[in-house]
Amino acid sequence: MSTKATQPVSMTRIEARTAEVRTDLLATEEPLEIRVGGRSVAVVMRTPGHDRELAAGFLVTEGIVRRREEVLDLVRCTGESGEPEENILDAVLAPGATVDLERLTRHVFTSSSCGICSKASIDAVRGRFDPIAEEFSPRREVLVALPDRLRAAQAGFAATGGLHASALFDADGNLAVVREDVGRHNALDKVVGHAFFAERLPLAGQILLVSGRVSFEIMQKALAAGIPCVAAISAPTSAAVAFAAESGQTLVGFLRGERMNVYAGTLAG
Amino acid sequence: MSTKATQPVSMTRIEARTAEVRTDLLATEEPLEIRVGGRSVAVVMRTPGHDRELAAGFLVTEGIVRRREEVLDLVRCTGESGEPEENILDAVLAPGATVDLERLTRHVFTSSSCGICSKASIDAVRGRFDPIAEEFSPRREVLVALPDRLRAAQAGFAATGGLHASALFDADGNLAVVREDVGRHNALDKVVGHAFFAERLPLAGQILLVSGRVSFEIMQKALAAGIPCVAAISAPTSAAVAFAAESGQTLVGFLRGERMNVYAGTLAG
Repeated sequence: MSTKATQPVSMTRIEARTAEVRTDLLATEEPLEIRVGGRSVAVVMRTPGHDRELAAGFLVTEGIVRRREEVLDLVRCTGESGEPEENILDAVLAPGATVDLERLTRHVFTSSSCGICSKASIDAVRGRFDPIAEEFSPRREVLVALPDRLRAAQAGFAATGGLHASALFDADGNLAVVREDVGRHNALDKVVGHAFFAERLPLAGQILLVSGRVSFEIMQKALAAGIPCVAAISAPTSAAVAFAAESGQTLVGFLRGERMNVYAGTLAG
Repeated sequence: MSTKATQPVSMTRIEARTAEVRTDLLATEEPLEIRVGGRSVAVVMRTPGHDRELAAGFLVTEGIVRRREEVLDLVRCTGESGEPEENILDAVLAPGATVDLERLTRHVFTSSSCGICSKASIDAVRGRFDPIAEEFSPRREVLVALPDRLRAAQAGFAATGGLHASALFDADGNLAVVREDVGRHNALDKVVGHAFFAERLPLAGQILLVSGRVSFEIMQKALAAGIPCVAAISAPTSAAVAFAAESGQTLVGFLRGERMNVYAGTLAG
């Protein structure tokens, strides 16, 4: 992982009777503006590193981009100085490709002032991705091995205590990719963006492991990438469980040691 | 706190050699659509309870509404059935009040396709709130007492392991209000909304304690409410520290037992 993922900061450590100035390593958080064809669609606060994956994954999991061939490349924009801007990425669309910017659902201005069809905006949040079609039941002994493999691969958290991780494993528990970010959505988007550039979407037969909790939005982003199983070290929310059941996803929470809670789907063996 | 804040869900608990079906309590997560004058401005995934506070606090901390008198009331919208919709709130503006919907900065479509002034969108994220003007240095012995008071007041986390808390204390450590939510921003917005309805904004001389980590956005929302000191059980991000220093806010992290790290500002005594 990039050394930019953490950043030294001076602080005062105070204990019962002492106070001393120290240097602390914090998770880096900076804005990344994501554009499509020159048009700004979002600013996300992210940990620098794997920015192209983050931007590509964001466009996929928000339903704006579907296939690798729709995007020629993701490029740094050039600022006033003529130098590339660190914190702006533009998705250059392939000739003839059209994207549905209306799919961007979070914190969106709608021009609608419709008082009657009051569910329109909330329904938009629920998304319009197809349910998982494949039969996929992860094996218990594979799942119990994943947290240790994530921790071994996760460089940032130990240093800062402030980074979320997302990791993708195959059905046998082999690690495909791990990404970290100050935002849990961003860590997942980076993983999906990695698969996007490798042309491995949809991620059939894969298991996503996340370091923290699982919200509705994590399940929705996983579904957008075709991931049939999400496992988490911590708790899911009520909406995450309902979404997983509707979408045919397996959802495992509190995966710790030999224990886990299966909230949706079933395990094999 | 509302009983709707948690929700029973059936799951399968798997241990080394056993699997049994149990009922688990999860943090409730549902969409709330926030409107201003009938116009939809955001959908947030939140834990039901204190919804009017959440909507009001969101409008304040996003810089859309500044003063109590700008809003006549926040009301449930009526759905097609003629019944009030649980998950839609509309801010009814006072006659003559105007709001700046352009202030909504997160995940926003901009119509700009400007390639030159490439920093416009990122600058918008940085916000335009005035720095803290007051001299306020929290006392060490007050801060160390806050986490226990938060835990005593926090009903949901013990049950679900999945709720964030935000609490407001005065300079002597007296608890003013505590709110929980599946989203850390929402918990803070509920606290600010509570102060909004009590006409206590800006929150001069107050200390905000958050149960988790502190991002840039938490500091920005705290500044929007005029909160001079933010303390957290966990780590801040690099951007949170930089923002606090620029804004004249005190930022304390890893507040545990007799220890804490002061990242910005100074303590008294």
